[in-house]
Amino acid sequence: MNSNNFAVIMAGGIGSRFWPLSRTSYPKQFLDILGTGQTLLQSTFERFSSFIEHENIYIVTSTDYVDIVAQQLLLLPKENIIGEPERKNTAPCIAYISMKLQLINPNANLIIAPSDHLILDPENFRTTCLQALDYTEKNNSLVTLGIRPTHPHTGYGYIKSSSETKNEYISKVDLFAEKPCLEKAIEFLSDDSYFWNSGIFIWKSEDIIEAFQLYNPEMYNLFHSELNSKDIKDENEVIKSIYNKCESVSIDYAIMEHAKNVFVIPAQFKWSDLGAWNSAWENFEKDENENAMIGKNIVLADSNGCIVHSNDDKLILVGGLEDMIVVNTKDAILICKRENEQHIKDYLQKLSEVKGNQFL
Amino acid sequence: MNSNNFAVIMAGGIGSRFWPLSRTSYPKQFLDILGTGQTLLQSTFERFSSFIEHENIYIVTSTDYVDIVAQQLLLLPKENIIGEPERKNTAPCIAYISMKLQLINPNANLIIAPSDHLILDPENFRTTCLQALDYTEKNNSLVTLGIRPTHPHTGYGYIKSSSETKNEYISKVDLFAEKPCLEKAIEFLSDDSYFWNSGIFIWKSEDIIEAFQLYNPEMYNLFHSELNSKDIKDENEVIKSIYNKCESVSIDYAIMEHAKNVFVIPAQFKWSDLGAWNSAWENFEKDENENAMIGKNIVLADSNGCIVHSNDDKLILVGGLEDMIVVNTKDAILICKRENEQHIKDYLQKLSEVKGNQFL
Repeated sequence: MNSNNFAVIMAGGIGSRFWPLSRTSYPKQFLDILGTGQTLLQSTFERFSSFIEHENIYIVTSTDYVDIVAQQLLLLPKENIIGEPERKNTAPCIAYISMKLQLINPNANLIIAPSDHLILDPENFRTTCLQALDYTEKNNSLVTLGIRPTHPHTGYGYIKSSSETKNEYISKVDLFAEKPCLEKAIEFLSDDSYFWNSGIFIWKSEDIIEAFQLYNPEMYNLFHSELNSKDIKDENEVIKSIYNKCESVSIDYAIMEHAKNVFVIPAQFKWSDLGAWNSAWENFEKDENENAMIGKNIVLADSNGCIVHSNDDKLILVGGLEDMIVVNTKDAILICKRENEQHIKDYLQKLSEVKGNQFL
Repeated sequence: MNSNNFAVIMAGGIGSRFWPLSRTSYPKQFLDILGTGQTLLQSTFERFSSFIEHENIYIVTSTDYVDIVAQQLLLLPKENIIGEPERKNTAPCIAYISMKLQLINPNANLIIAPSDHLILDPENFRTTCLQALDYTEKNNSLVTLGIRPTHPHTGYGYIKSSSETKNEYISKVDLFAEKPCLEKAIEFLSDDSYFWNSGIFIWKSEDIIEAFQLYNPEMYNLFHSELNSKDIKDENEVIKSIYNKCESVSIDYAIMEHAKNVFVIPAQFKWSDLGAWNSAWENFEKDENENAMIGKNIVLADSNGCIVHSNDDKLILVGGLEDMIVVNTKDAILICKRENEQHIKDYLQKLSEVKGNQFL
């Protein structure tokens, strides 16, 4: 394995759209949503382990979750778990880890990926990532993996590739498009040059640091004024102070939409962001009535298209329902329609008004 | 209180339409369905206690429930709990208890009533019952309490009163009509002579025994051959043997539809048979969106017309649903539409196919 290659897994999300399975204190990435026997974080770690040394894999997460990460990834060196003191979206996270790795290895070549996506074809994932790492090693480029759209999804950002291709597997990026309306999404679907933005990035640490310097000098200075030598006294306090001053912004908005050296590699693997229950439903095994039942003691009668997820022993009897989400956990039950999964956050707002944060 | 007056409370039902709250091992009549602080049996007992001596109140139930009755009715003499060895509908139950009471008091004048109905006006109930007892004491008559229909219910039997009235409060019965179709039920609703059959009967024990002798001599002989003296050796064994041979039939079908001396008294009290969740819903307190929430930690968002009943501490969050039944108990959860309450038995059939009787 190439010891300049690093993987950075971002594991700080709270996954509220999977409530009550996913909880603020124990969110989605730490759960075995699909019943595979591994949590999403564990799967992501294992995926990278096949081509990146364990000591070169880093997890960036909330300080609240550092212990959970350590419990779930026993093969990961403890010092590779980086706690963020606040949630400030992806740009600060990436600025921080990139400068940190640059100090560890000036030739660091990184893949940055979310911890909570589903990738069904690890072998193709590996091939794609190694191609990307090979490319960024040799070129001052920021590379993103693009997913070929299968339907007009309005919840993803899109990437438009240019006709200017470097070779058979990589294209220059023309523009990043924010989450589109349905009309636009349908247009994008019929145009081969559009990809879903997977949120998986590949670049050398020096190249992304340079991009910060160019396109977000404020954030660059905030981090670089402190993270410029290996001998940082009390890194936690330093980072706490930086995060406190730092704006909350995504890497797409802070850097990718502005940089001129951005390239996309179309992914050859099956991908899902597992963003909410419906995308999980697509990946569950289903019975002949399209019901996905995960857990013990679930019985559906005259029902179809339902997701029933239970992690205790209670008998759940669903009768005569269509396209319903039923989630039963140790201390909470959610019942809503699949078509309303985007409203779960609103329901949780109502819940917190009535019950405070006890069940969030 | 008149020591010839007796009350017989029938408490042998299994209340499967209230599953999973009501269970074969602990059915509806032993539950506080409406959250009043009393079980339905306890309310029924209390209602009779205001005008019938405790030692004259009898509970006929399944042998399986004798201990539950004793636990719930501490003021009831234990020997007044009569266990039936098998469920054989109401006729055998009434034949048995009538002959038994006739031996105890040859002038016994009885009210027979289900244990699991809701009666909101105990004072008017008392007045109506005392009128009926007064009438049956003086006349060889079988009296039933009729409920003035408020809507075209297709789940009840109906009673047609004749224009031949005895006095201002009692009428002869022309006929008993089985559960009608909706068209018939609408016709009955507009006709003042029709009543719902409440299943509450008043008669002297000697008069109902005579009716058995006339209209169901087989059942009469089966019971009377054994229950003709106070000195019955091993009553349990005798009854077991009789029930084993006895047909399963309702008192309406076995006697009331044939007898010539049947009278109806229109009830002056508000009544519900609490037959299933919708009739319970009508009697629950509801929020401004017509949701009935019984239990702790229930939160409804964007929902209306729902019943959510919970008897544990789990948080239940219902989002964006209409007219849904959600019942959460210690070991089981039911989710279905209110309009499908009559299908709950079918859902339980499916449940028993998949899981056996464990959760019934």
